[in-house]
Amino acid sequence: MKVVEDPDVLASTTRKWQTNGQVVGLVPTMGALHAGHQSLIERARSMCDRVVVSIFVNPIQFSESSDFLSYPTPIDSDLDMCQTLGVDLVYRPDAKRMYPEGFSTSIHVARLTDAWEGRDRPGHFDGVATVVTKLLAASRADKAFFGQKDFQQCAVLRRLITDLDLDVEMVVCPTVRDHDGLALSSRNERLSAESRRNALAIPTSLRSLQKHFDDGQTESATLCDSIVQALTDNDLVIHYVEIVDSTDLAPVGTAQVGNVVIVAASSGGVRLLDNHILT
Amino acid sequence: MKVVEDPDVLASTTRKWQTNGQVVGLVPTMGALHAGHQSLIERARSMCDRVVVSIFVNPIQFSESSDFLSYPTPIDSDLDMCQTLGVDLVYRPDAKRMYPEGFSTSIHVARLTDAWEGRDRPGHFDGVATVVTKLLAASRADKAFFGQKDFQQCAVLRRLITDLDLDVEMVVCPTVRDHDGLALSSRNERLSAESRRNALAIPTSLRSLQKHFDDGQTESATLCDSIVQALTDNDLVIHYVEIVDSTDLAPVGTAQVGNVVIVAASSGGVRLLDNHILT
Repeated sequence: MKVVEDPDVLASTTRKWQTNGQVVGLVPTMGALHAGHQSLIERARSMCDRVVVSIFVNPIQFSESSDFLSYPTPIDSDLDMCQTLGVDLVYRPDAKRMYPEGFSTSIHVARLTDAWEGRDRPGHFDGVATVVTKLLAASRADKAFFGQKDFQQCAVLRRLITDLDLDVEMVVCPTVRDHDGLALSSRNERLSAESRRNALAIPTSLRSLQKHFDDGQTESATLCDSIVQALTDNDLVIHYVEIVDSTDLAPVGTAQVGNVVIVAASSGGVRLLDNHILT
Repeated sequence: MKVVEDPDVLASTTRKWQTNGQVVGLVPTMGALHAGHQSLIERARSMCDRVVVSIFVNPIQFSESSDFLSYPTPIDSDLDMCQTLGVDLVYRPDAKRMYPEGFSTSIHVARLTDAWEGRDRPGHFDGVATVVTKLLAASRADKAFFGQKDFQQCAVLRRLITDLDLDVEMVVCPTVRDHDGLALSSRNERLSAESRRNALAIPTSLRSLQKHFDDGQTESATLCDSIVQALTDNDLVIHYVEIVDSTDLAPVGTAQVGNVVIVAASSGGVRLLDNHILT
């Protein structure tokens, strides 16, 4: 397994692979790899001849520097996981190389980024759009793999890829959950035992909502109320709970199959995201 | 010669070429091809296995719709020229395909775009950066060819390509001039005979400035004054005349070899650009 820090070396490597007719898959990550990343890498492994994993904690997508500085960076175990999963190349640029003095370019995706995470985290999606464009460009990826857990991010990146005519296939993989149902996230490490127990109200209430929907309840406000109640009862701070259209992320009054329930709430000060596509 | 309107067809064509080890060159144009474009295409032909010319009058880079609507579009003669010059593929998307309903993405290059053309044409460089990124992405170009006449545009695109890690080599080709010295531009067609005669003060005074510089004058203000005088004497409306650093485009007080004299002036209502790199 190669470990590469220079975007030009990355590009010349993948370029050579592509000249040999090989399909290159990219799994962009911020490291602290868990079973969710593992599922992305395995999916990439099954669909591509060559798998590139990028590990880069992107400073420009954090609105709070304390969040950035406390982001976990267990590089040795990350590299071990990549090696075990048969990754061909890990791209691990440093921040000075990604954003050198004089760096001037930013990418903005309008509208889709106005609400939800975009409202609560100013500049977050500009940072995501810019870094993902850089990673796709340097890796020359034919396919790129993202987790459904970050639903709004997937919607924004889908728009970006379409709008910029980027010649890459976006593959969105299902959220991976811990045995207790909590959606995997690198941030889960920060949860105390109690905060984690409380956080289980998120996946539990999402499952209950699907049952209410199955039973015939389609009014979004009513469906969401039950989540709000469950999260409040468990001491979570709610940022939003909403049922939205899966493409434009606009709230819907009457829920239907394919709409998405999106939730952001903090437990013990740790911001957690989850979502569920109504079936 | 293929003519393609669909970005996916373009990408799959160039992808096939690249899999065969062929180097793909892109010459992005807004059509109304003249000898300046011809020199770019010939340069691409000499450096690449496959040459793609894009012809697209990009609505989002025009700050005035009248300028956009009156931009010349002689498509038949453009295609003839491409055919004659051995172009492999002309990419001719339509505006609805480039910017469909829901299009949301914009690219901004900060600082370099604050002054000069950027100051006079709000949004212009965002439009240029966005469309060039799209054209580079859809064409999967290995090399891209631009004219030095649009000096600030070249500086902005160089920054963009570096910042986004785009895996493309940028080739800047010298300005091509008419027999009388006027820098070629599709906009020259709009000049009356008299406006055109007056406009010659631009290349003439740029040549004179080089002579003053050769004679030992290095004070930017003094050097530029002679241009301002010549343009004013010929009824041109001056937008800016400045000597700047070639990378960050900041004005320099004392001129030195490698600095660039940039000029924008209107003759009979037609905005003309020219520049000269001090030798």
